[in-house]
Amino acid sequence: MLHKTLRVLENRATKLWLHNMIYRSSVKKTITTTSYCKIKEEVSKLLALKAQLGSEDAAPQKFVLKTAKGTRDYNPQQMTIRNNVLQKIITVFKRHGAECIDTPVFELKEVLTGKYGEDSKLIYDLKDQGGEILSLRYDLTVPLARYLAMNKINTLKRYHIAKVYRRDNPAMTRGRYREFYQCDFDIAGQYDLMVPDAECLKVVTEILDALDIGKYVLKVNHRRLLDGMFEACGVSADMFRSTCSTIDKLDKSTWDEVRTEMINEKGVTPDAADRIGEYVRLNGSIELADKLLQDEKLSKSKGAVEGLEGIKLLLNYCELLGIKDKILFDLSLARGLDYYTGVIYEAVLTQPIKIGNEDQTIGSIAGGGRYDNLVGMFDSKNKQVPCVGVSIGVERVFSVLEAKLAAGDISVRTSDVDVYVASAQKNFLDERMKICAELWNAGIKTEQSYKKNPKMLNQLQHCEENGIPLAVILGESELKRGLVKIRNISTRQEEEVPRENLVQELKSKIELLDIKEMNGPLAK
Amino acid sequence: MLHKTLRVLENRATKLWLHNMIYRSSVKKTITTTSYCKIKEEVSKLLALKAQLGSEDAAPQKFVLKTAKGTRDYNPQQMTIRNNVLQKIITVFKRHGAECIDTPVFELKEVLTGKYGEDSKLIYDLKDQGGEILSLRYDLTVPLARYLAMNKINTLKRYHIAKVYRRDNPAMTRGRYREFYQCDFDIAGQYDLMVPDAECLKVVTEILDALDIGKYVLKVNHRRLLDGMFEACGVSADMFRSTCSTIDKLDKSTWDEVRTEMINEKGVTPDAADRIGEYVRLNGSIELADKLLQDEKLSKSKGAVEGLEGIKLLLNYCELLGIKDKILFDLSLARGLDYYTGVIYEAVLTQPIKIGNEDQTIGSIAGGGRYDNLVGMFDSKNKQVPCVGVSIGVERVFSVLEAKLAAGDISVRTSDVDVYVASAQKNFLDERMKICAELWNAGIKTEQSYKKNPKMLNQLQHCEENGIPLAVILGESELKRGLVKIRNISTRQEEEVPRENLVQELKSKIELLDIKEMNGPLAK
Repeated sequence: MLHKTLRVLENRATKLWLHNMIYRSSVKKTITTTSYCKIKEEVSKLLALKAQLGSEDAAPQKFVLKTAKGTRDYNPQQMTIRNNVLQKIITVFKRHGAECIDTPVFELKEVLTGKYGEDSKLIYDLKDQGGEILSLRYDLTVPLARYLAMNKINTLKRYHIAKVYRRDNPAMTRGRYREFYQCDFDIAGQYDLMVPDAECLKVVTEILDALDIGKYVLKVNHRRLLDGMFEACGVSADMFRSTCSTIDKLDKSTWDEVRTEMINEKGVTPDAADRIGEYVRLNGSIELADKLLQDEKLSKSKGAVEGLEGIKLLLNYCELLGIKDKILFDLSLARGLDYYTGVIYEAVLTQPIKIGNEDQTIGSIAGGGRYDNLVGMFDSKNKQVPCVGVSIGVERVFSVLEAKLAAGDISVRTSDVDVYVASAQKNFLDERMKICAELWNAGIKTEQSYKKNPKMLNQLQHCEENGIPLAVILGESELKRGLVKIRNISTRQEEEVPRENLVQELKSKIELLDIKEMNGPLAK
Repeated sequence: MLHKTLRVLENRATKLWLHNMIYRSSVKKTITTTSYCKIKEEVSKLLALKAQLGSEDAAPQKFVLKTAKGTRDYNPQQMTIRNNVLQKIITVFKRHGAECIDTPVFELKEVLTGKYGEDSKLIYDLKDQGGEILSLRYDLTVPLARYLAMNKINTLKRYHIAKVYRRDNPAMTRGRYREFYQCDFDIAGQYDLMVPDAECLKVVTEILDALDIGKYVLKVNHRRLLDGMFEACGVSADMFRSTCSTIDKLDKSTWDEVRTEMINEKGVTPDAADRIGEYVRLNGSIELADKLLQDEKLSKSKGAVEGLEGIKLLLNYCELLGIKDKILFDLSLARGLDYYTGVIYEAVLTQPIKIGNEDQTIGSIAGGGRYDNLVGMFDSKNKQVPCVGVSIGVERVFSVLEAKLAAGDISVRTSDVDVYVASAQKNFLDERMKICAELWNAGIKTEQSYKKNPKMLNQLQHCEENGIPLAVILGESELKRGLVKIRNISTRQEEEVPRENLVQELKSKIELLDIKEMNGPLAK
């Protein structure tokens, strides 16, 4: 205890001393030399005391074993779920020709500065250990913009699946962690209006269909329309962004709550708020856009008209792509992030998901939009690379599937082993090893016990627990006749086959099993 | 400039002020109240000046755009190489029934404390932002041990592929980074001697064969034999570990250099060093182990005999697994890490790799060993879970393949797109979109231009640059006749097919191309 306190004090004193040094050289003599000497003296005393206590590393480990707050390990079942989900998503990304990139887990702190508004306080910083000042990445969008600007890339269609870090209040049961996956698809480049934007929506539908996670709707809106709407309602331009983030809360709060916040916290007049209230209640399709283009107030706002024309074009493309019935033009959709400049979208599950006997409401499962000015923030000449993209909320998908697993609604196999090499008799390790090597060399997924003389019951139990469908069973009498037994674990049928045909026999049995499994619940 | 300087000063002053606050409350009145007030006053002045300059977020970003020292982005080509390599490795891991786990990128600092000896200084710490004290993971072995102990798991065969972090001197041209991949396979559990240990070696051979990266040898040795050897040569027990890390340098240094370090820095007597020198020159196979069991000095050391018996058993199992000719029992192999307790191994490429016109020597490409006491360090009752494992040096593999790519020895395709939907005429975007949607829905990897009226030349060029084998070409006259053209990009042959048969026609053409590609250089 004394040791720990001293360490804390020592750290603080050292830091103070260092800062004094830096401060003195820059601000000059703000601190009297006397107090500076006192600090230095105090540090020396503490260091001497620490030396008496001896090396810290030699002390035994006694602390609560846990992962860092808001983080978790993925066990083999969770990894299997995660990999299955990501594999399905990657298949869709690749179907659209997306390339894959990766960036370091930390960036220079300056790269992240000024990109996240109020949320900047949630960024994890690395300790200054001499050298550059670094922070953990907060999302994958800012690293993409940095990557494009740094490498002077003008066009890219990429996906990026990686962990990001936020010092947020974790709500782990609802799948909200401090370390979590993002799964992004973005199209960068100067193209014709709404063509890549529509493809992003098509990508989201293909992913949600592949994940088969329930009915959904893709809400779309346009930042220019929102701005135009605020303008038309009498909100001043400098209040657009903050009003926008209040509107964003409409998915969780009632209109009355949002109205109150607008008036009391954002300084919107009650009249303006009520006018906004009329608009954000509206949703529909291309007919609504047409109607709003005739709206007396909106039609006078250049931004609103631009946004509405954009939405019309987008909805038209969605029809051509065959996804019109999944799209909802919704004036209440706002999205919190500052950097969006054009279309914004959000996919929402419209039905609760059944987990065991309970219904769980999931809500938003993907979101994104157009951000045309972010790359320019990194370019010395402010050269823009327009971008549009979408992020899939995979953590929510993981947590739904993990809950289903826990409720017994689904099952997962954490290894793909097809064959277990077993023996009922003693001293068969050598023979087992030879057969395992033969099967591995033939590409057959094979396991055996690491014990010299394992019990038959334990070996069969391992097969059952791990879903291994086939066992090769070695016995002295069979081997003498040049035979081995193949056992089907679930049917318990056994069959003797010639030792030299073993690989061939197993391969055809596995092929048959694979065909059957294609109709299984996890393979689809 | 003024703005930046002020910002720096302000940060420092604020920190200083905060530290003074903390310091005062703990060490009490070391600083005179006068100097404290002066600092506070100075901070206020700076803050006022800053307010005059306006919000920082509005200022343009002016700093050198780069990734953090020792890290890099992976571009699509590098990602393709990386994913191909990892896929081959995962296939082998799964063939042996390994399950996959993942752990957070940071751990409580205490978890890493006292595990890495001198190298602890290379650990990245996170800034103390209130809450737990965290560090980035340094390897995947300690997180595995923490995972096993925390969840009270006694048996596990797992692989883990993830990035780890070391504040080392980067040598990026040689594939040494501060952020890099580790790729680990470990077997935890109380089993019979050398059975899982031998399987680890089999796994390494399968991986190196699959990567087809050149001839290699798997060196093996035993920590108990090394200890016994030191004992037999007259080194005292407390110097075993430090002598061992000197021996570990034999792959890069001459015997004379190692001998000098042993004598001058580690305090080994010249006589003892010379006796060690006799042993570490030896390498061979099971015959060498037999011979050493007869060795006058070694046969008296319990550790040496145990190590030699272990090596004999391991070599015997390697013969059964059919990998005997790839194994070399080598007394100079030591491995730096403290935590090994039994067999140790290292895979070394025996020939330089040809990159362009140059030969590059790679050396070590995988390594590992048995560590039976690490899990117990995390258990309050010191309960042990014996482990053995191997780590594949994938960064070296990546850097070899990237160099080959740069030298033009290999090529990679960064997207899998099979079909490009194009048109020579204007106003065909609607028709292109409908066809793209149809192909995507049929699972065909498809792209099109995001421009309304792209030039034919640009569209075909995109196909050639990206290795897209087929193009669907839409024209008014063909469509009127209910036809579309399919163009083979490399042969430039075009063929008209009925519009309604398009999906079917494309699928059979892609199937043919896939069969051809299986003989290509990247598919093996």
